Amino acid sequence: MTIFSFFTRASKAFHGYPVASKLLLVCTLSSGGLVAYSESQSDIGSAGVVVDQIETKKKKVVVLGTGWAGTSFLKDLDASRYDVRVVSPRNYFAFTPLLPSVTCGTVEARSIVEPIRKIIKKRNGEVQFFEAECVKIDASNNKILCRSNIESNLVGNDEFFLEYDYLVIAIGAQVNTFNTPGVMENCHFLKEVEDAQKIRRTVIDCFEKAILPGLSEEERRANLHFVVVGGGPTGVEFAAELHDFLEEDLHKLYPGVKDLVKISLIQSGDHILNMFDERISSFAEQKFNRDGIDVQTGCRVVSVSDKEITMKVKSKGEICSIPHGLVVWSTGVGTRPVVKDFMEQIGQGNRRILATNEWLRVKGCENVYAIGDCATIDQRKIMEDISAIFEAADEDKSGFLTVGELRDVIDDIIMRYPQLGLYLTSKHLADVTDLLKDSEGNERKEVDIEGFRLALSHVDSQMKSLPATAQVAAQQGSYLSRCFNRRDQSHKNPEGPRRFTGSGRHNFQPFLYKHFGQFAPLGGEQAAAELPGDWVSVGHSTQWLWYSVYASKQVSWRTRVLVVSDWTRKFIFGRDSSRI
Amino acid sequence: MTIFSFFTRASKAFHGYPVASKLLLVCTLSSGGLVAYSESQSDIGSAGVVVDQIETKKKKVVVLGTGWAGTSFLKDLDASRYDVRVVSPRNYFAFTPLLPSVTCGTVEARSIVEPIRKIIKKRNGEVQFFEAECVKIDASNNKILCRSNIESNLVGNDEFFLEYDYLVIAIGAQVNTFNTPGVMENCHFLKEVEDAQKIRRTVIDCFEKAILPGLSEEERRANLHFVVVGGGPTGVEFAAELHDFLEEDLHKLYPGVKDLVKISLIQSGDHILNMFDERISSFAEQKFNRDGIDVQTGCRVVSVSDKEITMKVKSKGEICSIPHGLVVWSTGVGTRPVVKDFMEQIGQGNRRILATNEWLRVKGCENVYAIGDCATIDQRKIMEDISAIFEAADEDKSGFLTVGELRDVIDDIIMRYPQLGLYLTSKHLADVTDLLKDSEGNERKEVDIEGFRLALSHVDSQMKSLPATAQVAAQQGSYLSRCFNRRDQSHKNPEGPRRFTGSGRHNFQPFLYKHFGQFAPLGGEQAAAELPGDWVSVGHSTQWLWYSVYASKQVSWRTRVLVVSDWTRKFIFGRDSSRI
Repeated sequence: MTIFSFFTRASKAFHGYPVASKLLLVCTLSSGGLVAYSESQSDIGSAGVVVDQIETKKKKVVVLGTGWAGTSFLKDLDASRYDVRVVSPRNYFAFTPLLPSVTCGTVEARSIVEPIRKIIKKRNGEVQFFEAECVKIDASNNKILCRSNIESNLVGNDEFFLEYDYLVIAIGAQVNTFNTPGVMENCHFLKEVEDAQKIRRTVIDCFEKAILPGLSEEERRANLHFVVVGGGPTGVEFAAELHDFLEEDLHKLYPGVKDLVKISLIQSGDHILNMFDERISSFAEQKFNRDGIDVQTGCRVVSVSDKEITMKVKSKGEICSIPHGLVVWSTGVGTRPVVKDFMEQIGQGNRRILATNEWLRVKGCENVYAIGDCATIDQRKIMEDISAIFEAADEDKSGFLTVGELRDVIDDIIMRYPQLGLYLTSKHLADVTDLLKDSEGNERKEVDIEGFRLALSHVDSQMKSLPATAQVAAQQGSYLSRCFNRRDQSHKNPEGPRRFTGSGRHNFQPFLYKHFGQFAPLGGEQAAAELPGDWVSVGHSTQWLWYSVYASKQVSWRTRVLVVSDWTRKFIFGRDSSRI
Repeated sequence: MTIFSFFTRASKAFHGYPVASKLLLVCTLSSGGLVAYSESQSDIGSAGVVVDQIETKKKKVVVLGTGWAGTSFLKDLDASRYDVRVVSPRNYFAFTPLLPSVTCGTVEARSIVEPIRKIIKKRNGEVQFFEAECVKIDASNNKILCRSNIESNLVGNDEFFLEYDYLVIAIGAQVNTFNTPGVMENCHFLKEVEDAQKIRRTVIDCFEKAILPGLSEEERRANLHFVVVGGGPTGVEFAAELHDFLEEDLHKLYPGVKDLVKISLIQSGDHILNMFDERISSFAEQKFNRDGIDVQTGCRVVSVSDKEITMKVKSKGEICSIPHGLVVWSTGVGTRPVVKDFMEQIGQGNRRILATNEWLRVKGCENVYAIGDCATIDQRKIMEDISAIFEAADEDKSGFLTVGELRDVIDDIIMRYPQLGLYLTSKHLADVTDLLKDSEGNERKEVDIEGFRLALSHVDSQMKSLPATAQVAAQQGSYLSRCFNRRDQSHKNPEGPRRFTGSGRHNFQPFLYKHFGQFAPLGGEQAAAELPGDWVSVGHSTQWLWYSVYASKQVSWRTRVLVVSDWTRKFIFGRDSSRI
């Protein structure tokens, strides 16, 4: 019996007892020196089993999606604590705020993407990635069905199941056409890198077609009519980029048709960029007016055909159709079918969008989290819990809440119901005592439950759902990974606010969004920005601020260098108009 | 009557007489100063007509294709002498020698393309470009039918005719499958930029598919088997690039399947790179052997299905099939249908490839030229004209050719029949007198016709058809543009050699190809090169020579900067494996 076969038998004998087997292995390694080392090498098969058995004690975390939310979650997750699997139809993270720049070649598509495998490779511990689409979430059995999205003749099954202990849904939203006929078939979108590349090719197609011999002027004009539907930041930025591309590059290369080009921006609201400050809206409208971009506000698109776009002018009730060469649809987000199906399973079927609690846990599911555009936080109203809060705060159970008692719990209340913090700020209330003032503005030492209810009655009006932006998604991903990393600690020492409707404290503080401002590039090296503290900035210097912020926010040094060199290249050589 | 209306009337009165009208305009400009200047501005309409009438006297040159030949022709053409129109399905020039680098992301696709409109914009005079494919050449009516290749809903007729006085065919060749079943459907090619981009995506697909859960090892191996058919420079370079991509980048990102990857290179001949020096062939084979690239020489591919490639081992006569994930077919070139159809019209129907004379004029057509891969030069044999040459050289009509008489015409003969020059070099004959030596090697003062015929009898064996390379195409384009630019001068003062079968001289010297050497990058920062003068160079330094030559040969400063920065980027950050 060789040493090898002895160890094999011994390890087999201990097979059911991983800890004992491990002890044996350690003992072998420490006592046997070189021989034992070489044996343990040959015996890697059974040793592997032992390791596996330890590994499988790790909780399985499955992450769906590699957008802002998913990637931000993965970047900060301590992967050594979990068995992490990532499923996404795209094997890269894309810096989506630069997509409008990709449509015109200001920045190349490759410069804004980073392979997700590169990002997860740097994690502490192994993270497995599968390029596939999750087509079904089976919440009751804690597993998902995935399907490979590779259209090819490669062999092997396209479908597979993955089991999870925790599921993180971060698959983003899909385009919302508002059921407008013809939009899906005849419009371009700006959600994926491929969309941007397709738009770039189509813009060139429009020019190449318009310049061919034998077309009437009317036909040339139709082919060179670029329509953008949606006056939000994406639509506005695309219109601005396109205008710059025409002015700075294409006009020189297609001089024969340059006077026939037109850009229209259609917005259903009364102003473009209406989520921004009014000053920014009007600055943008004036700039577009000077640039010759036709901004049509108060227009609702009724249908889109392959040749024409039909819309209704709200004020007059008129319906008109105009021929187009390219329509980019950039308005609103909708829920993906797989999420819709999941919502039906967990009793959220009548909601429009998946709801989570303030800790980003899906309502109705213990072990599923949802972050980014695919979900919304269903913030609890303070008025729903007003009696419980009063009761908990009224420590001496006197039926009256004193200023002192309120001071003791106010931080917990603000943490649990952030709308109260916003309310205090909006009303310029510096101190809690101000909250307890009566209707005439006189200070009170204490209030009863009715007085307390009245004092807080307008607080819930400050509740706002978060916008579907990269900033929110990234913060949510990062927040959730912190919770995952500190799950054990926080279980022992809860970090969150007091539970008013129960006992003890919440394990974590709820997610709180911090707004760092928002940009809207307007073309011609000008941008508008809304910065924290209601600061508004417009013009050339804002564009430079935009450059520096976007360069610094890149996910890797590779993309940072590439994006900056793309900008430099554009300044020196212009944009490329090759149709590839 | 204002000055303006006077000039308007005057110009109308002279409308039928362009020269007079032009004189009037010149007189106006020189005498009237500022007023007259402003008048001539207002009067631009009728002045435009005059210019048009002069312009239309220019000969119409239509160029088909924007590859190496077409672009090189356009770059050097004096566009002010002709009315130039360019038709190509691609609105850019691509630096094709870097296509294998694009397949693996060593260089980006955008870095090797330059919009053709940018190139022609710099020409002296207006050149019109139409993005369309020539589908029919009507040689008898001097016109071509073109069809736009834009697949879209844009309005306007897709087809149009163009008339020409001179037609330059530079549309290149298409892939030659040698009628092997399944190749068109199941193989990738490496002729266009899109091909390279598709290969890049497919390589990533193979890895993403192979790493999915639930595949057997056999299936993973099949998906990761990359097959290259053709051991020419393109096939070899692609295999080398792919090997580097796997070794340097993908192995790190897909550690689970890295041992299952295999690259096979299938070559029907006995050696790869068999158009190069033997030393290079064996160096390449040894390097590939060390790298683990499976080189299978003496194998002919019989058929390709979506899952398997079937080939016949020539030596054993065996037929075997192996599963594959990706097959790149890179062997031989074939004639495009539109050229085939044109050949039928002009009586070249039984030829395999379009033939031109030594001045690149299509045989059987007065005003059609063909350059690049789409045509071959049908070099006239010296033996066909031997009597005429003898007669022309024998100035005193003595029936004997003296050394002196031969010296007088030898330059013309070598210019007209370049194979004679090659023959002299290959036989190390320094002087013409050597040519006249008798069979025993004794010098002769003179020879009769039979002696002359005997002396030159082996000369035609030196005739070689030129390879289908970028170098040949570029030189042909450049040569032809010089001929076009000097058409008038050379008509008055012919520059070419003496006509032996007629009187006078040829207008131009025939096209003479100058070989500047050829590279074969072999991966791992090593390359092989065959340089002029039978120099052979292999190894790392040759790779650096390759870098510098390829950087210097770029068509524009933009692409030069981009290509060099791509190389730098690869060294620092590696290649991108995002599937876009």
